[in-house]
This record gives sequence, structure tokens and C-alpha cells, in this order.
Amino acid sequence: MNLSLMQVYASLKPELQSIENAMTRAVSSDLPLLSETSQHLLKAGGKRIRPVFVLLAGKFGNYSLEALEKVAVSLELIHMATLVHDDVIDDADTRRGQPTVKSKWDNRMAMYTGDYIYAKALTVITELANPRMHQILSHAMVQMCIGEMEQIRDFFNVEQNVRRYLLRIRRKTALLIAISCQLGAIAAEAEPAVDAALYRFGYNVGMVFQITDDLLDLCGTEKQIGKPPGNDLRQGNITLPVLYALEDDSVRESLLSEITAIRDSNGQADSTKAVQLVRSSKGIAAAERMADRYLAKALRALEGLPDIPVKKNLAEIAHFVAHRSY
Amino acid sequence: MNLSLMQVYASLKPELQSIENAMTRAVSSDLPLLSETSQHLLKAGGKRIRPVFVLLAGKFGNYSLEALEKVAVSLELIHMATLVHDDVIDDADTRRGQPTVKSKWDNRMAMYTGDYIYAKALTVITELANPRMHQILSHAMVQMCIGEMEQIRDFFNVEQNVRRYLLRIRRKTALLIAISCQLGAIAAEAEPAVDAALYRFGYNVGMVFQITDDLLDLCGTEKQIGKPPGNDLRQGNITLPVLYALEDDSVRESLLSEITAIRDSNGQADSTKAVQLVRSSKGIAAAERMADRYLAKALRALEGLPDIPVKKNLAEIAHFVAHRSY
Repeated sequence: MNLSLMQVYASLKPELQSIENAMTRAVSSDLPLLSETSQHLLKAGGKRIRPVFVLLAGKFGNYSLEALEKVAVSLELIHMATLVHDDVIDDADTRRGQPTVKSKWDNRMAMYTGDYIYAKALTVITELANPRMHQILSHAMVQMCIGEMEQIRDFFNVEQNVRRYLLRIRRKTALLIAISCQLGAIAAEAEPAVDAALYRFGYNVGMVFQITDDLLDLCGTEKQIGKPPGNDLRQGNITLPVLYALEDDSVRESLLSEITAIRDSNGQADSTKAVQLVRSSKGIAAAERMADRYLAKALRALEGLPDIPVKKNLAEIAHFVAHRSY
Repeated sequence: MNLSLMQVYASLKPELQSIENAMTRAVSSDLPLLSETSQHLLKAGGKRIRPVFVLLAGKFGNYSLEALEKVAVSLELIHMATLVHDDVIDDADTRRGQPTVKSKWDNRMAMYTGDYIYAKALTVITELANPRMHQILSHAMVQMCIGEMEQIRDFFNVEQNVRRYLLRIRRKTALLIAISCQLGAIAAEAEPAVDAALYRFGYNVGMVFQITDDLLDLCGTEKQIGKPPGNDLRQGNITLPVLYALEDDSVRESLLSEITAIRDSNGQADSTKAVQLVRSSKGIAAAERMADRYLAKALRALEGLPDIPVKKNLAEIAHFVAHRSY
């Protein structure tokens, strides 16, 4: 994390701590097993980028930690719930042979844990008596589900075009970041033009975030990304650098056969060669250029906003998101 | 269906048709695969008991089909989403051997279909600008998730007591029926005392509904219930008649060993003997008595309500729920 970003986090420390505590309270339940799973997730932490955006967006209106905290907790819980559901069936797959009753239960439990966290997120945001916020959130949830399903539908689809990829990550990732900014502004009763500009900012930062994530999965070291590179490819998730690499004649044929091998092995084949091919192709630079275009759009969305100090912070975070290495 | 109940459904036919159409519209999406799954579910139909309760409850206030329809669609979609999630991991279990990528996708797709239907349900109810309704719904969703998890936790737990069973079905089933009545009344701007009485009515009918369902799973014929009896036992779901049967010394020991055999066979063992033991025990009559107690409570909840014709309809439905054979 660079220095200016650390300063942003440091300046929000008490608020972020308060949000963390509220999240812990939100997922406590009288079912010990459930509390355990949820708390485990919470402790795993994360960049809490959505809460940061909620808080910063709130500075463009009448900053009220009470309201912003509810928005932040709700959105971060929704993000957590999607992570839980992403993992549900993967887990089963790592258990070879016939699924045992126990593994079946574990998976179901994980699914219901996700459902529970979603529902808790709703109870938190509905404490704010603003139906428009509830509408925005539920519409975003619909789109996020569609994005997840599109991702599955497009697994190993090497014929998909860039537009399809962009639409998918828009739903899967960018929208929740967009509404973090938007709902933060609405909770602080900012001007409608401010909500809209912050939404555009968040949306474009969200696109940068996902494209950078997809680049890191191919170019990062195991230490940086916490898992061996090429994880997306092993799952069948064809990301932007891969799509652009497939347009590069110097690697296209070899890359196609590597991807086919991974697909035919149920994701068990080694993805090292495929990763190397993408790295050596024009795909990396092309995806980086696309990320930079979204970064520029994000920065442009900030232009019309009032010149308060937090505006600089938002720009710094956007730069960090684009150039981070983890 | 008995004659008076058929008359209730007949009198609501245009409204129920309109709700059916609205549900179809709600789950249509630009993702063909998703629309297909959802439409398939819709066509499978059901008793639409929640929409019926919403509509009837609405008669105690300023009946507005527009508002009631949104409540009904939302609650029935939530019910459908829980059915989808109930089936998710079961499906994987029927595929022997190593899970294929395809089956993994199918399960994930089913999970996301459920998530999508939940989210759609939220978009429909949030069109009504009444935050209290959103709060009631989200709190109920939390409890329903806990109920589902309690059911999994208590699979094959022959030591659980009756109170634990009742708490579980309260969350899993009764609450959604309770809020169908309550939200119908709120959408029609009925008096708070009316909301509360209808909530109590719905809650008690919901308890009757689930106990009767659990009795049918043991006492019904395959034709009546659409699957071989004893399905709950094969899943490990220990229901009220079984709990009471376990208190009957004439069958306790044999029943315990049958249940253990089912558990140890991963649910593959035959449940015919266990079903016969429960049927021959005092468990059936005891569970029927409990259902009758909840029926009496449901009817009592109606007493304070204004004497409009629909009150008689609610009583008829309660009787039907208690004595139905499918």
C-alpha cells in the first residue's frame, strides 16, 4: 500500500473499526455453527474497499456515521455473501469420489451461510427508512447474480468477445462498487448530481479493479496473490488478458490447445504453460491499456464534484486500484 | 380440495392469474438459461397459499390489487427461491462418483438461480415505498435461513426434543405464512391490531401446515405425496411424528436402529420399516393432536377481527391445511 493510501485508511481508522464491530454484531446469531463460519470470514479481512468508498462518498453530503455505517456494513456483508457462494461448490470438488453426507451438509451449510449473510445485510440497510436505497441495492443484487451465472455460462468459452467480458465484470464486480459510492452519497443526502457522478466514479473504478485482479491472477507471484497464478484459467474463467492473447497470432493456437487440455481434465491440468503464453503475448499490455481507459474515466467522473479534500483521496484510491500488486 | 376452498380460489381467480403473470414477468431475464430454469419452476405451480393469504388479508383494509400483488409476488418468489436452494446439493448426490465439471456448474447455477429469485423478490417488494415492509421481510429471511441450517444441524439427531422441532419449523415454514398475512394487511393499510391478529393467524396456520406436511410424508401414499413415503427420514429430517414415536416404548428401540441404519447408509437404506414403525406407534395421533392445537390457536386469532365474509374463508383454509391429504 502506498503512503497516501495508508493515510486515507489511517484517517478513517475509527470509522472502519466501528464498521468492523458492527459487522461482527450483525453476523452473530444464536446458532453457534453459523456465527463461527461468519466470524471466520470476517477475521479473514479484506481491503474493505466498499466501506472506504461509502465513507468517502458520505463526505460530499451531511456526513453521518450512523447512516453511513449501515450502508457500509450492508454492502460489505453482501460482498462477503458472494464470496461464500463462490466457494460453495468448489469445495465439494476437492473431495474425490462419492460425496459423503458430511460434505453435502458442509456445502449446504455454506450455501445457507451465504443466504444468511445476504439476509442480514438487508436487515441492516432496511433500518434506514429510505426505500430508494433498498431499490438500488436489490437491483444491484439481481445484476450480480446474473453476472455470476454469465461467468459460469462462459467458462472455457474462447469465442466470447471483449464486450461480453466487460458486461460480465460490470455486473459481477463494478456495480457493487458503484453503488457503494452512490449509496454513501444518498445516505449523506448529497445532491443528486453528486450521487450520479460518484456512481460513475465507482463503476469505472470497479472495472479497473476487476481487470487488475484478472491481470494479477496471470502476472502476479504466488506470494502476491495468495494462490498459484492461473487460477482463473483452471476454473475456466476466460479473462481479458486471455481474450486479448487469443487475438495475438504468435500464441493463439498453442494457447487454445492448453485451454482445451485444462477443460478436458476437469481443471486438473497444469496451467503453467497457458499462463506463460499469455504473459508472453500482447494480451497483458492490451488489458493494461483497457484498465487505464477506465481509470481515466473514473478520474473524469470526479471532475464535476465539489473541490473538497476527499476528492483527492478518491483519485488516489483509483490509482492504487489500477496499479496495485495484490 | 373441498368445495368451500374451491370457492375461495374461484373467487380470487382473476387476482391469482394476475399474480401468476407478474411472477412470470419478474423472473424473465436476458439470460435465457436463467429464464428457462425459473419458468420451469413457475410452471410446476403449487398451492399459491401465500398469495391467497396476502389477498385475503388485504380485504381487512383498503384492498388495492396493485400493492397486494407486489407483496404476493415477492413472498411467493421467496418461497420458490428456498425450494431451489433446498434442492441444490441433493441433486449432486444423485450423481455417483466424481462430480463432473458439468454437475458442479449445474449445482452452482441452481444456487445462483435461487439467489437471483431472492433478489428479484426484493426488487418487487421495494417498489412499495414502505420501509417497514422491507424490514419485516428481511428479518423473516434471516430466520428462514437459520431454520434451514437448524434442520441440517439436527439431521439424524434422535435426541432433539419437541420444542426444538417446533422452533425449527416456526422459522423454516410458519414465519413466511405469518408475514404473508401481516404484509397483506399492512399493504392494505389495515389497523395495527388487525396486522397483529393476522400475523398470529398465519403463524399458527403455518405450524399446522408443516406438521401436516410431516405427517403426510409418513402416512400418505406415494400417489398423494408424489414421492415414496419416508422421504424426510431418508434425508435425516426427524419430524414430530417420529419424535413422538421415539417416546413410545413399543417401537423406540427398533425405530432407533432403523434410523441408525439409514444414517450409516448415507440415506440409501430402505425407510419402509421405519415408516411402518412410526405409523404403528402413538406418534401419529400425538402429532395430529399438536396440529389440532395450532389449528385452534389459528381460529382463535381470527376472533377479534372484524366480521367480514373473508374471515370465514380464512377459517376454511385453516381447516383445509390441517386436514388435507396432499
